[in-house]
Amino acid sequence: MADLAKRFPQNPLLRAADLAPSQAGLTVEGVLNPGAFRYQGRTGLVVRIAECPLQKAGKISVPTTDAEGMLRIVEFDLNDPKLDKRDPRVICHDGRHYLTTLSHLRVLTSADGIRFTEDPGFPRLLGKGEQETFGIEDCRVTQLGDRYYLTFTQVSPDGVGVGMRSTRDWRSFAEHGMILPPHNKDCTLFDRKVAERYYALHRPSSPELGGNHIWLAGSPDLEHWGHHRCVARTRAGMWDSARIGAGCAPIKTADGWLEIYHGASLEQRYCLGALLLDLQRPWKVLARSLEPIMEPTAEYEQHGFFGNVVFTNGQVVEDDSITMYYGASDSAVCGAYFSVREILRSLG
Amino acid sequence: MADLAKRFPQNPLLRAADLAPSQAGLTVEGVLNPGAFRYQGRTGLVVRIAECPLQKAGKISVPTTDAEGMLRIVEFDLNDPKLDKRDPRVICHDGRHYLTTLSHLRVLTSADGIRFTEDPGFPRLLGKGEQETFGIEDCRVTQLGDRYYLTFTQVSPDGVGVGMRSTRDWRSFAEHGMILPPHNKDCTLFDRKVAERYYALHRPSSPELGGNHIWLAGSPDLEHWGHHRCVARTRAGMWDSARIGAGCAPIKTADGWLEIYHGASLEQRYCLGALLLDLQRPWKVLARSLEPIMEPTAEYEQHGFFGNVVFTNGQVVEDDSITMYYGASDSAVCGAYFSVREILRSLG
Repeated sequence: MADLAKRFPQNPLLRAADLAPSQAGLTVEGVLNPGAFRYQGRTGLVVRIAECPLQKAGKISVPTTDAEGMLRIVEFDLNDPKLDKRDPRVICHDGRHYLTTLSHLRVLTSADGIRFTEDPGFPRLLGKGEQETFGIEDCRVTQLGDRYYLTFTQVSPDGVGVGMRSTRDWRSFAEHGMILPPHNKDCTLFDRKVAERYYALHRPSSPELGGNHIWLAGSPDLEHWGHHRCVARTRAGMWDSARIGAGCAPIKTADGWLEIYHGASLEQRYCLGALLLDLQRPWKVLARSLEPIMEPTAEYEQHGFFGNVVFTNGQVVEDDSITMYYGASDSAVCGAYFSVREILRSLG
Repeated sequence: MADLAKRFPQNPLLRAADLAPSQAGLTVEGVLNPGAFRYQGRTGLVVRIAECPLQKAGKISVPTTDAEGMLRIVEFDLNDPKLDKRDPRVICHDGRHYLTTLSHLRVLTSADGIRFTEDPGFPRLLGKGEQETFGIEDCRVTQLGDRYYLTFTQVSPDGVGVGMRSTRDWRSFAEHGMILPPHNKDCTLFDRKVAERYYALHRPSSPELGGNHIWLAGSPDLEHWGHHRCVARTRAGMWDSARIGAGCAPIKTADGWLEIYHGASLEQRYCLGALLLDLQRPWKVLARSLEPIMEPTAEYEQHGFFGNVVFTNGQVVEDDSITMYYGASDSAVCGAYFSVREILRSLG
């Protein structure tokens, strides 16, 4: 199948060099995986800023925080036989895991949806408290009425779960705690109720039994979730064989809820595909992409901090047009247009 | 520290041979891990019945269910080089995991709390639907008003999560769906609200970051859960270094919520200990057993389907006296008495 994405000629829109580190001693390693929203006539992105310590020759330095939440740099000798650094995202030393980067979120806005700048009036969203000591990542934004709900990954030594904050004005935020316990990420709220219930897609991970599948949950109030069901599973031998996860809020169409999701192969190549969910019973999959609707083919999607990745968690929809923002190679923020009709047609 | 349990001289109270298999072709491998409750002046147990196929020479046969939920036996040659059967509970063949037994729940009652019999008036609780195709296990019972809430492990190829059903009369049951998504088990509800909220302890498991710790969640309605927090972690080098999980509903005392929990070492030896949680802020641990309050020392606790295990998820409390029911070696149901005061004193 043809790649259905019309990439912005201006890609990448944002790179590490475009943003200042949050504190001395750190460098911005990547700007990635933006949530997207519309506010006061502008397009907003909630981008993930991944930072790592300045590196020294012959060493690898990784960021952690102490019990008080203060940054602490841990150094290992590159020749240390107890060091496993095959995955650039997580290293292992003597059985203990360390993230190589620590992420926070920043709000950037744009009049044209292409050139984004940080608005000093909007606070940076930093990890806080025991459950976010290793940072927060990959924020989805869902607007319900005049309130924006941010669902994001909370990372700490206790595990990886889904946190939620909400805001009306992007200046003050309400905290809603951890809404889904470890190991969970890639959570997006639906942008309206279905039969008087809120819904969310999420991605628990299971050791042994189970896998990295997309699940659905229901809620009376957005803060408390139940009635969990597995909706879509990884598919052996296909482009989404190792893990899948929802993008942002599904798009309501006459045919069903259209959800763009990411899928990774065993070779860790991340592509995008689509799911069509039943309008009334969103746990029913009506159709699913056999082939990706977008693959990492551009140079900036194939090379970077973690190459061969297109990953989306943000889009702005107007009629048939999807303006999608995505992370390329865990390094940069890019944009692409899709047509709702074209995606639906590709589902057969 | 001295083992604080006063074991029933009648132990084990129930063994595999005491109960009939649920269908032809199966044999009861173990009767274990009972939830406990009081109903109409009698003590009730919700026991887990683990069944496996009748075995043939030179083969290992394991139970699975097909898409329609019908039992299907899968056979492997014992000499198959792709077979890993080091863990008697889960075997692995060519990268795929199979439970060696399939569990359901049965309600047994007793006038004296010692001799339990199956009441034909109470239906057996079988796994049903897509999320329970590999059975249901390890039920906790919490009474709230005149309704009994059963929280138990749901097992399927999609993973291991926590399901809930409730009943007033042990004859008809309401279904509440999966209340906690994979990978999660060892969930018990508190038997009363704290500051207008329901609470539960649960045990998510995380690959890489995190571990097998005890978490707390809050709920407005028992069906939907949020505000997850890690309460107690495994302790390196101690008896509870590999995994811990809550027993049944914590006991409200003047000093705090007293929770008996199980802890396993890296050598898979399961003991019991106690946690004392703050009455108003049950996510705060006030005290915790340094040494187990009960260890697998009796012959029936050391030898069985999976040896060196004492595991509890059921108790009946009257004033200072805890009548605890527990699984021994994943094979049999046993009983023991504890004193609330003695446990509190042991916490120092």
